[in-house]
Amino acid sequence: MLTRRTMMAATPAIAGLATAAGTTRADAQMNPPSTAAGQAPGFYRYKVGDIEVTAIHDGFAARPLDGFIRNADIAAVKAAMAEAFLPDAALPITFTTLVLKTGGRTILIDTGNGDSGPPTTGRWMSNFRAAGFDPASVDTVVISHFHADHINGLRLKDGTAVFPRAEITVPDAEWAYWTDDAKMASAPDGLKPGFQIVRRVFGPVMKDVKTYAAGQEVVPGLTAVAAYGHTPGHMAYMLASGSAKLMVMSDVTNHPALFVRNPTWSAVFDMDADMARATRLKMLDMAAAERAHVSFYHAPFPATGHILKGSDGYRFVPVQWMSAI
Amino acid sequence: MLTRRTMMAATPAIAGLATAAGTTRADAQMNPPSTAAGQAPGFYRYKVGDIEVTAIHDGFAARPLDGFIRNADIAAVKAAMAEAFLPDAALPITFTTLVLKTGGRTILIDTGNGDSGPPTTGRWMSNFRAAGFDPASVDTVVISHFHADHINGLRLKDGTAVFPRAEITVPDAEWAYWTDDAKMASAPDGLKPGFQIVRRVFGPVMKDVKTYAAGQEVVPGLTAVAAYGHTPGHMAYMLASGSAKLMVMSDVTNHPALFVRNPTWSAVFDMDADMARATRLKMLDMAAAERAHVSFYHAPFPATGHILKGSDGYRFVPVQWMSAI
Repeated sequence: MLTRRTMMAATPAIAGLATAAGTTRADAQMNPPSTAAGQAPGFYRYKVGDIEVTAIHDGFAARPLDGFIRNADIAAVKAAMAEAFLPDAALPITFTTLVLKTGGRTILIDTGNGDSGPPTTGRWMSNFRAAGFDPASVDTVVISHFHADHINGLRLKDGTAVFPRAEITVPDAEWAYWTDDAKMASAPDGLKPGFQIVRRVFGPVMKDVKTYAAGQEVVPGLTAVAAYGHTPGHMAYMLASGSAKLMVMSDVTNHPALFVRNPTWSAVFDMDADMARATRLKMLDMAAAERAHVSFYHAPFPATGHILKGSDGYRFVPVQWMSAI
Repeated sequence: MLTRRTMMAATPAIAGLATAAGTTRADAQMNPPSTAAGQAPGFYRYKVGDIEVTAIHDGFAARPLDGFIRNADIAAVKAAMAEAFLPDAALPITFTTLVLKTGGRTILIDTGNGDSGPPTTGRWMSNFRAAGFDPASVDTVVISHFHADHINGLRLKDGTAVFPRAEITVPDAEWAYWTDDAKMASAPDGLKPGFQIVRRVFGPVMKDVKTYAAGQEVVPGLTAVAAYGHTPGHMAYMLASGSAKLMVMSDVTNHPALFVRNPTWSAVFDMDADMARATRLKMLDMAAAERAHVSFYHAPFPATGHILKGSDGYRFVPVQWMSAI
């Protein structure tokens, strides 16, 4: 006999269902929090005017260098790695999302890998909780683009919605492209899994997803900036509060040691390499000229700093970590 | 009537006396630990071969630029600050000590400001505890030199010894200089407080303090390197385990944005400016040539990285923060 009680027991994937005091399935299925013998929690808080920004780290993926950059030979790539004292064989690509606290609301920009990434990822939820946040309190999730490492954190592999109360808003051109079944059918095989991930993540909530356009103020203080090329609808943002600003660069570059230093290089992740390069050059030039405070999804944690233009090109200068916020 | 019990009650300053479960006076008198709404705990763990190193942060002091550098004009100093996107008015000088776990022993190199620094410091104990350490478990404290921000953490203002079980070992030349009453009597007024701090910190344990010499293996794997000039007995170290090495630079430079970029500049803290400059140039050259892993007490947290020698001079390249240790 099917009662409410047996139904509940049979549907452990209900969003936010507590499995232990204060934790949810999203906690249970992700990597455990840092222990006393482990690394410090991967969050970093800073202010942009009145807006409190918290960078939340989701670990890393080791990317072999062979075949990673379309238009640079491996010797040049290894020289760039050596200049940054990075390992010779594989690039540790990190994932760092942003939480914005403004006007009493909690807003995420991107979500990390959830429980779908390699085992060196999946640290997002414990870091998010260590920073004092609760997934049930998230009001809005703003997505920059639909690559797996940005959207998989919205939904666990078992179907659980990780942010049960949150409104989800996505770039209009990104939505139009990836939800188009004709585009999926005609896509090369290597791209098809990307279309499937979009269906896995958004399928259960297709009618509820909101879209936003370039130039639009997505949430108060956060304006979308067209940064197409990496994906068809890829967005950067300008976050502003009073006279303070943060250029949220999303994936305008992958790791700065390679792509800020060599902005004409194209990672295989850039779907339209020429358009992505033009976007990158334009936005790095703007950031350097304005001495803008910037953040990058794939810069080393805490993934925020400035762009210096010197006699030998661009350079990412990380912020000095501060105990005071 | 004086019994053992009333004696204990009358001497709350006894080293390590518990004031609440698991805490001591050193906890109670220092800044509270990071809260959910605060910054992440300031510790960072990494390996040097088999040795586990943990950087422990003690906050910062804002140093006005005027009068800070003896041999550079203020415009040049401000240009160096701008190149690093640091504030225009004052340099945030940070304090980061090291904990070594090796062969089952817990060893500190330097101790931070304790409760004697400005209010933006004093975070050491909560960060040390957040990293899973207990002051009562420290076996050895190795001191690099006797400036207040390196030794004040040994003893609270009320006299409490913060590391009750620890052996304390200090550079022989440093000990000879600062404990010499004739040198104190003849020192310029500006230097006299430094002599008094040494007496405050070491006075109660004068007979127990051990000394070590340049070239000596102070604890297994940690060899002292003469780095005189900043103070008369100032020490750097080479930490080695198997083929892995870390050059512990202590105060060979103050903030890298100023003194790695401009190694001939002399901060007012360098007691013998010429000798300190020669030491700095030699050790930066060695670090760059060997592509050595380095740490600096006053580099931005986590205060570890490498020295790159390029066409425009030296540059400190911080490590990429890693969630994996």
